[in-house]
Amino acid sequence: MKWIRCIHDGQTFYGILDDDRITPVRGDPFNGHERRNESLRLADVRIEVPVIPPTFYCVGLNYVQHIGAEGKNIPAQPDVGYRANNALLAHGQDVLMPADATRVQYEGELVVVIGKRMKHVRPEDVRAGILGYTIGNDVSARDWQASDRTFWRSKNTDTFKPMGPWIETDPDLARMETVVSVNGRESTRFGTGDMLFGVDTFISTMSRYLTLQPGDILWMGTDGHSPDLSDGDVVDVTLTGLGTLTNRFTRLPG
Amino acid sequence: MKWIRCIHDGQTFYGILDDDRITPVRGDPFNGHERRNESLRLADVRIEVPVIPPTFYCVGLNYVQHIGAEGKNIPAQPDVGYRANNALLAHGQDVLMPADATRVQYEGELVVVIGKRMKHVRPEDVRAGILGYTIGNDVSARDWQASDRTFWRSKNTDTFKPMGPWIETDPDLARMETVVSVNGRESTRFGTGDMLFGVDTFISTMSRYLTLQPGDILWMGTDGHSPDLSDGDVVDVTLTGLGTLTNRFTRLPG
Repeated sequence: MKWIRCIHDGQTFYGILDDDRITPVRGDPFNGHERRNESLRLADVRIEVPVIPPTFYCVGLNYVQHIGAEGKNIPAQPDVGYRANNALLAHGQDVLMPADATRVQYEGELVVVIGKRMKHVRPEDVRAGILGYTIGNDVSARDWQASDRTFWRSKNTDTFKPMGPWIETDPDLARMETVVSVNGRESTRFGTGDMLFGVDTFISTMSRYLTLQPGDILWMGTDGHSPDLSDGDVVDVTLTGLGTLTNRFTRLPG
Repeated sequence: MKWIRCIHDGQTFYGILDDDRITPVRGDPFNGHERRNESLRLADVRIEVPVIPPTFYCVGLNYVQHIGAEGKNIPAQPDVGYRANNALLAHGQDVLMPADATRVQYEGELVVVIGKRMKHVRPEDVRAGILGYTIGNDVSARDWQASDRTFWRSKNTDTFKPMGPWIETDPDLARMETVVSVNGRESTRFGTGDMLFGVDTFISTMSRYLTLQPGDILWMGTDGHSPDLSDGDVVDVTLTGLGTLTNRFTRLPG
């Protein structure tokens, strides 16, 4: 089942997506919902970010090839990081690269959307607390990543966190591949599940010390390399069986 | 003027605090409000965290003595960091130290509460976008801070971010001192304004790349040292002229 959050006639609401039709609901996927007796065409709505999280978790180093590219050692334990809500961007909207942002690259990622409150949860019980999965592009300005003491500009500049287009509740994670294309040409492909620490391990470990809340999101990291992106480039991040997150990259004037 | 967020009769609401009386409002300080024709005693409500922020910003290194204690160099530019909403805790509630958390310390901080949307704001225009100021205790488990690749456990364990008790809209920042006491005995005192990069500089710089939203919070860092805290210790963080944030530290069983 696919949950979509969208705007139509000035209203923001959740709906259930079936092929190219949306059934709007009253309520939301976290606190209960009721289907409305309506149907909209996907083409007629504006897709919004599927959730604004209470806390935005993101794994930095979780795939071997990417860790090498960053010049880092293999982590010995699952230490989660953070990103910032100001940077979230919907499917179809433009990533705006500041004039002084250099070496801007994509990172295609699986995103976990938490459905239920979880604390002290065992790995085998984690899945029951997950609402579903969506796609993230952890856009990164590599020179700022090296020059700044934190990730505030490199990772959290406005529009640097595209997420969407919808939440799939039952994807086939075992067979999933992450495929990234620039202007229609494939540039990165990896097995989405080839993580150092998987979803169950991460969330179980985190929940020893913190409470996961409904609507929290956890980005699971990326593998491979990205070219430096240029003004006008269109990046598609596909998780096979789930969907494609598409955003154009636009260079802002100085 | 003091804004307080509290619970009474099972309802959470904002109110205006005048001495020990609260006038509840409809609405909130960010989107408009209307005073209700009621009055409550401060002693009769439960004080809540004054705001749940869309994004939780926090400055790590902003006072010279603390930077030395952390063994860091003086930052050349104002790079902001982040904390996580799961860790927020109200005035009067217990900080719960996990059994395996060692060298747990306080950090008393000035907290800026954003009132208006700000992007590309000049330093001299920042104050007009600030709703007010409150107090934060950036509780830190120092051994995890050294052992983990991120701050997820050291800084963001549940209950590690006490904030409150209220928002003061017009404090005298120039004369303010930060005073921290453990069990009633003063252990740290510094001039709140003795920052490397002040509020106006930080927010103006941040706003070149990101949009500050109403309700966002920015913790401004700390100075001085803290003892390692023990089960039962009560920590008061006072910002002179603003108020005192009080929390007991309790050790959880293993």
